[in-house]
Amino acid sequence: MRKMEEKILAEGEILSGGVLKVGSFLNQQIDTVFMREIGEEIADMFKGEEITKILTIEASGIPIAVSAGFAMELPVVYAKKNKSSNISGDVYSTVVQSFTHGNKNHVIVNKEYISPDDKVLIVDDFLAHGSALTGLIEIVEMAGATVVGCVAAIEKGFQLGGDRLREKGYRVESLAIIEEMDDVEITFRKQ
Amino acid sequence: MRKMEEKILAEGEILSGGVLKVGSFLNQQIDTVFMREIGEEIADMFKGEEITKILTIEASGIPIAVSAGFAMELPVVYAKKNKSSNISGDVYSTVVQSFTHGNKNHVIVNKEYISPDDKVLIVDDFLAHGSALTGLIEIVEMAGATVVGCVAAIEKGFQLGGDRLREKGYRVESLAIIEEMDDVEITFRKQ
Repeated sequence: MRKMEEKILAEGEILSGGVLKVGSFLNQQIDTVFMREIGEEIADMFKGEEITKILTIEASGIPIAVSAGFAMELPVVYAKKNKSSNISGDVYSTVVQSFTHGNKNHVIVNKEYISPDDKVLIVDDFLAHGSALTGLIEIVEMAGATVVGCVAAIEKGFQLGGDRLREKGYRVESLAIIEEMDDVEITFRKQ
Repeated sequence: MRKMEEKILAEGEILSGGVLKVGSFLNQQIDTVFMREIGEEIADMFKGEEITKILTIEASGIPIAVSAGFAMELPVVYAKKNKSSNISGDVYSTVVQSFTHGNKNHVIVNKEYISPDDKVLIVDDFLAHGSALTGLIEIVEMAGATVVGCVAAIEKGFQLGGDRLREKGYRVESLAIIEEMDDVEITFRKQ
């Protein structure tokens, strides 16, 4: 069993409405000892790939991206979310739908932090419908840079966002893929 | 000269209106190799103090808090910002004025992540008027926990927030204190 799967079973809580709460170690509170191991696992997964930069999105993607950045000694860039569409010309921006919060956000990255020669690893905490990763992929490609791959800490496999990105040819790795989840039990996809 | 002072002089940019831009290494983009050193510097500063938890505020406080958390092997909790006052009873919350963005935010932390026996180190990226740190101190004290100290990556000494907190008896450390700044030159306070 993988580290993230063990941690979810030990500390995750299933709330009503199919929400998996991992606030005790992944978001809200960050278990830094565990996150160091997770950062090293991500580094191992992409060993041999040429990567120049890690891209994530505020706020809950930052801890895992920074952990990967520590392990890989790579700079981390985080996209900002903005309700308003009043965005200046010196940023790349796209619109991302949040199914969790039921709203849309403009996602922006300052142009100076991604250049055409960057080879980018995209990292986020959750992958469900894939909207955030899709938005970040768009931003990398707008910049003329290359997406080396995507990593999610936890993928909800039954919401298909990850598989749709894999079908498009992107390398998408998740530290745990939840295949099924009801009020009492979680089943992980064998990877 | 201290590490953060050197980095500001090497990579910081002074924009009009007295804004110091440090997006290339501290926010927006995070220089993880530098941040590892900064995390160790914070750990050294508070060596010998009993600390159980690090508290910061999303989003730009997270990288530095996680870096300190890695060095100190301590859990990191981050407060969330929320425009709405529609806040449930299971959180500690306070209102923080942002002078940079000219608005107010409700700052919230889930009650389960701070307990009365916690000894908390508060970490943030910028300290100017001190509103964010003051809000985080309020939250720690609402929880009945103890504030061991506060660390800011960069303090604008001329805006007096840090000194006001020191006068109240809090230990406030900054990795660089800007005493004066005009369009061309930065002067640091000797520490």
